[in-house]
This record gives sequence, structure tokens and C-alpha cells, in this order.
Amino acid sequence: MPNLEQLTTPCLILDEARMTRNIRRLADKAAALGVTLRPHLKTAKSTEVARRVLTDGVGPATVSTLAEAEVFADAGVHDILYAVGITPQKLPRVLALRDRGCDLVILIDSIAQARSVAAAARAAGKPIPALIEIDSDGHRGGLRAGDTDLIEIGQLLHGSGAGLRGVMTHAGESYGVSGWAAHAEFAAKERDATVAAAQALRAAGLPCPVVSVGSTPTAHAAEDLAGVTELRAGVYMFFDLVMAGIGVCDTDDIALSVLTTVIGHQHDRGWVLVDAGWMAMSRDRGTSAQAVDQGYGIACDIEGKIYPDLIVRQANQEHGIIALRPGSSATLPDLPVGARLRILPNHACATAAQHGSYHVIPADGSAQLRQWHRFGGW
Amino acid sequence: MPNLEQLTTPCLILDEARMTRNIRRLADKAAALGVTLRPHLKTAKSTEVARRVLTDGVGPATVSTLAEAEVFADAGVHDILYAVGITPQKLPRVLALRDRGCDLVILIDSIAQARSVAAAARAAGKPIPALIEIDSDGHRGGLRAGDTDLIEIGQLLHGSGAGLRGVMTHAGESYGVSGWAAHAEFAAKERDATVAAAQALRAAGLPCPVVSVGSTPTAHAAEDLAGVTELRAGVYMFFDLVMAGIGVCDTDDIALSVLTTVIGHQHDRGWVLVDAGWMAMSRDRGTSAQAVDQGYGIACDIEGKIYPDLIVRQANQEHGIIALRPGSSATLPDLPVGARLRILPNHACATAAQHGSYHVIPADGSAQLRQWHRFGGW
Repeated sequence: MPNLEQLTTPCLILDEARMTRNIRRLADKAAALGVTLRPHLKTAKSTEVARRVLTDGVGPATVSTLAEAEVFADAGVHDILYAVGITPQKLPRVLALRDRGCDLVILIDSIAQARSVAAAARAAGKPIPALIEIDSDGHRGGLRAGDTDLIEIGQLLHGSGAGLRGVMTHAGESYGVSGWAAHAEFAAKERDATVAAAQALRAAGLPCPVVSVGSTPTAHAAEDLAGVTELRAGVYMFFDLVMAGIGVCDTDDIALSVLTTVIGHQHDRGWVLVDAGWMAMSRDRGTSAQAVDQGYGIACDIEGKIYPDLIVRQANQEHGIIALRPGSSATLPDLPVGARLRILPNHACATAAQHGSYHVIPADGSAQLRQWHRFGGW
Repeated sequence: MPNLEQLTTPCLILDEARMTRNIRRLADKAAALGVTLRPHLKTAKSTEVARRVLTDGVGPATVSTLAEAEVFADAGVHDILYAVGITPQKLPRVLALRDRGCDLVILIDSIAQARSVAAAARAAGKPIPALIEIDSDGHRGGLRAGDTDLIEIGQLLHGSGAGLRGVMTHAGESYGVSGWAAHAEFAAKERDATVAAAQALRAAGLPCPVVSVGSTPTAHAAEDLAGVTELRAGVYMFFDLVMAGIGVCDTDDIALSVLTTVIGHQHDRGWVLVDAGWMAMSRDRGTSAQAVDQGYGIACDIEGKIYPDLIVRQANQEHGIIALRPGSSATLPDLPVGARLRILPNHACATAAQHGSYHVIPADGSAQLRQWHRFGGW
């Protein structure tokens, strides 16, 4: 393994072998289900990761910002879903991306949006194809089953030449339940809601080539996606403690960690202070409502081996306080000032966003760390 | 006021007039107390803000990372306290900064650190002056009152030529209590703990020119800092809902907000969806344990006027769900797709860290927004 002692801490470590295994797992699953995989690049925000997770390195992708769409289009990705509801102000950037040859598809769930997109497409004399968002679980946006606006939105998009590409849903509530059976239920809800919407559109004489579903929990649990054409997921490439906490992965699937150095102690309280605070871990406390609260993350040794019951109990901006879980009978390891640890994060999307690059432990076993750039912004 | 309709959302807005008022308030307070103000630049991470908050634009500063020290040293700041416990691995960067003429002072609270710093100073033949951290409130690091290591650490630093610059404390627990009297108590604890430590060092024949205290709540509440030489605070220049929640400021002192655009609705639930999710606001939920939970922030109109009872109730990566507070009888304002709002953040340090720049509403009343760069990293 490459030497992590030379890096400036805190910094972000990516275990490429674990990432590769995670990528393959869902690619195999999508193939078995007979659907196209459209990975969400919002977690990684890296062209190096995109190259490894997308089909042929440039295949269908999902993004959460137009900045992502622009960076990945520059890197040759030409089939992108921007999966956040569109605003009129963003349409010029959408058109500019489409003019560059990127098939950027937008998301709509209201007549007001459809009207503004239809008007913009007419004014430009160019398509601005959209998916209609369907709400399959009450998570956030989307039309509810049987919403009478569905057909009107479809007609506005289709009739104006903007283009109706299909329907999509994201069962974000699946993050709140644990276990394969519960996730499979949400996967069935995603399928049923979108297939029903697609049928309603088609029955009204409208096209609906794309039926898109997915979240990391539902993608891994889906059993039968008849009628669905594509599957989306994002955090699966790295995984995290939230996903481990609901049984989608094991902790040894987690490809991301934060390398940190011990900066002090409060021996009588059993505290080890490290230089990874919330600036390095993010403020995400996604495991706080789970069966096991992991604080700000699980502490591992520099090789990535988990210390029993040792977690980041508290975090300030540049200080983490590592201690045993409440009630633990484990022994606090000897971690002098200068010792290095790795912290598994609650939420890979949030933790990765705190860093400007990945320090990559290569899957090929070479002893040289690589560095992959990450970007942010909107 | 400049036109905020043209900006790409989400983005970070800084009201320079409010910032200037906040800066002046604490500068006046420090002058009245007869202590030097050493602002903490970890919240702002901007040379433009540093120029406005530091005495003469380059005066004493506090930082939380060596990256900050390097950027601010480049900008002419030559008196910097790096206020996070040092590790041996970071000493070469400390020495490099000092070689460039920056009087960078480090922080130590253990004999192990003092030994490594003493050894490094001897090896380099150069001083590496340090403050000894004192624990005045059990918040995180520091030596407790009466810790017998104090004198040994002082002797190691002084005897080796590394240099003993003094003592410091930070009553971070003051964030957890509300009201002037409670904060004044913590300010007295900061003073008493550091002055006692300074006296102990001096009684042992050691120098202790600097006695440094502070946090934003204690700095504003301190009444008598006899024996203290300098005051530190950071978030005060922007303020935030956490500070408002404990009575250190009012909401109309908060200089930072996130500009966002409405992307959708769930009308029957009273939800307004916006394009500021936790990526724009941060995952910080610092008001969740306060008397009034502000969710992910308070919603204002584009001019910054607060909507009654309207807060960001939930956040996903790029989605915020705005709704009335539970139990509110206020009326949901009409906010169509494309409408713009501003969100006051829970925690300015965390929210600002999610952005690459500030869009500044100038204090001079000019109609042109300015853009100030922010940096991150370690």
C-alpha cells in the first residue's frame, strides 16, 4: 500500500479497488435487470471517477448542477440528465450545452415550468427535452399519481418542440428504512409510479421513451423493473456509513475515508483530538437517526482497519474528538500526537464536497498514490 | 441595491454594510477593554475580508489551517496565530512561513508536542514560538488549571530557544448557553484560567507576554479583562442564526445569506422547493438544540426582509424544502417557480465554506455587486 504518512492532513483518501468493486456490483445488477445504468456524478464530481463509472467512460450520466454538466460535457460525456427541477434563468446554459452537442435533458414537474421551457424552445427554434418528475414516495418534488397536470405538461413539451423524453422518479425516502425487503418495496413503488405515468402519457398519444428510476438503496434491491428503461444511483460508487447502516453495503465496501493526525488528548476523558473536524468530515450526521449513531465517523488505523467502538464523537471546525462509543468496554488504542488514522464518513457526498481532490490508493497495487481533482460550485 | 436577479443560484451574498457594523462593534469593544483584537479568519477565508477586519488591514490574525496562514502571509499579514494543536508533520511549513518573515505562532498543550517543537527549533537553529493552550471550560483541548505539565512545557519551549510566547484559551462551550450574563461568566472563566496560568509560568521564571482569550460570545460579553492582552473571535464579522439564537446578535446583523431560486412546489403540503440544498447551506443544524430550531435557515425576500415563520425545513444535496414552521398561523407567500429568496444560515463558517466566492452588496451604496474570492483546503 502507498505511504499515507507523507500527505498533509486532513485529506481525502479513495480506495480504488473498493470503488471498482462497487461500480461492478451495480453495473452487473443493472445488466441482470435489463436496464441502462445512468450513474449520478454528484457524489464524485471528478472526471477521473466519471471515466471509470460511466459505460465506455462517457456513457449516460446524471448530474445535480449545471456546473457538473459543463465539466463532464467538456470531458466527452454527451448524454446527461440534470436531475434538479429547472428554473427559467438556467435555460440559456442548458441551450448552450445542447448547442455543444451534449444531449442534456432537464427535469420538470409543473405546468409553469413546462410553459417557460416550451416558450424558450420555440424562441430558440431548438429542442430542450425534459423528463417529467413523478413523486413515488412523498420525498420532495414530482407529480403525484393521477395528477391531471401530467398530460398537460406532456402536451406542452411535445407540442412546442421542446421534447418530451419521458418520466423519472427518485425514492429518497428509501434512505430512511433498513434492509433489502424494505428497499425492494420502494423499488417497486418507483417502478409502479413511473410505469403508470408512462402509460398515461402514451395513452394520450404522447411519446415516453425513457422511464427512469433509482436511488442507491432501491437500485440494489430492485427485483423486477419491467417497463423501466434506466436506473440511476450515485453514492454507491463510494458508499458510506449511512448506506452501511441501512444494510446496502458493509463497512468494508466504503471506498472513501479522511486521513487525519492526532493533535492532542484529554486522557482522563478518553479523548483523542485529531485535525479532522467538520471542515474535513462535513457537518453531516446522517447516522444520528439510525440504529447505531456513528458520530462524525468510524475511526480506522492508517491501513483502514476499524478500531473497535472508536468513533468521532464531536467535531469543531478543525478539531475532531475521537473516543469510544458510550458504554463500550473496548480499550482505547495508544494514539500519540502525530499518529495517523482514517475516518469512514457518514455521507460520502457531503464529506467529499469538503475536499479539492482525492488521494487515490490505486487498484493495481502500485505503491504510488494518485491524485484526482474534484470540483464544486454551480 | 444591486440587482441579485442576474446571479447564478445558489450563491453566497455578503452585505458589506452589516459586516462593517459587526467589525466596528467588536473593535470598539476590544478598545474599551484595553486589549488587542486578533480576529479569526477561518470564517471568512478571504483576503478582501481580512483587509477590512484586521488592524491597518494586516494586523494580528488567527487562523485554523496552515493554508490560511500561507494565503494571508502572501497578502501581507505578518502576525498570525495558528490556533489548532500542532503536529510534528506540520513544522516544516511553519518554519517556511517564519522564514518568509511571518511571525507565525503555534499552539501546544502537551509535553510530547513541546519536545518535538523544541527538537525542531534546535535542529533548525531558529525559534518556533508557541502559546500553551489552557482548558477553561472542558470544551476540547488544553491543560486544565493546576496541570503540572504547564511549567515543564514552558521550560521545554523557552529552554530550547523555540520560544514561549504565552497562553491562550477558547471557551467554545459558551456557544451552548444563552444571554449576556451566561456569556460574561464564560468570559470570566477564560480570563481567570489564562491569567492564573500566566502567573504560574512567570512565577517559575518563564516569560509570558501574551495572554489570549476569546470566542464570539465571550468577546462581546467580557466586562473586565485585567491581565489579558488579546481577544480572539471569528464568526462575529458575519454572525449567523446560532449567534442570534443565543442573543449575541439580532437577525438583522447577519451579513451572510444564500441566494436561491424556486424550482417547484408541493402545494398541498405547503412546500416551496428551492435550488439551495445542503450543498449551498451546509449540513450544519446548529440551531436544532436551541430554543428555536431554524431548520436549515430562515427565508427572506430578495432584499433580505424575513418572511414570517418561513424556514428551510429539509435539505437534500441540491434541494431545499421551504415551509412554514410547525404550528405557524402565518400565510405562505406566493413564490412561483423562478422567484428568488435569500436564506440566513445557521452557521456562517460552515455555509461560507460551501462556496468559492462572496457576491458583495457594497456598503457604499453603489449598484454594482462585487465578487470576493474565498479559498479552502489545508
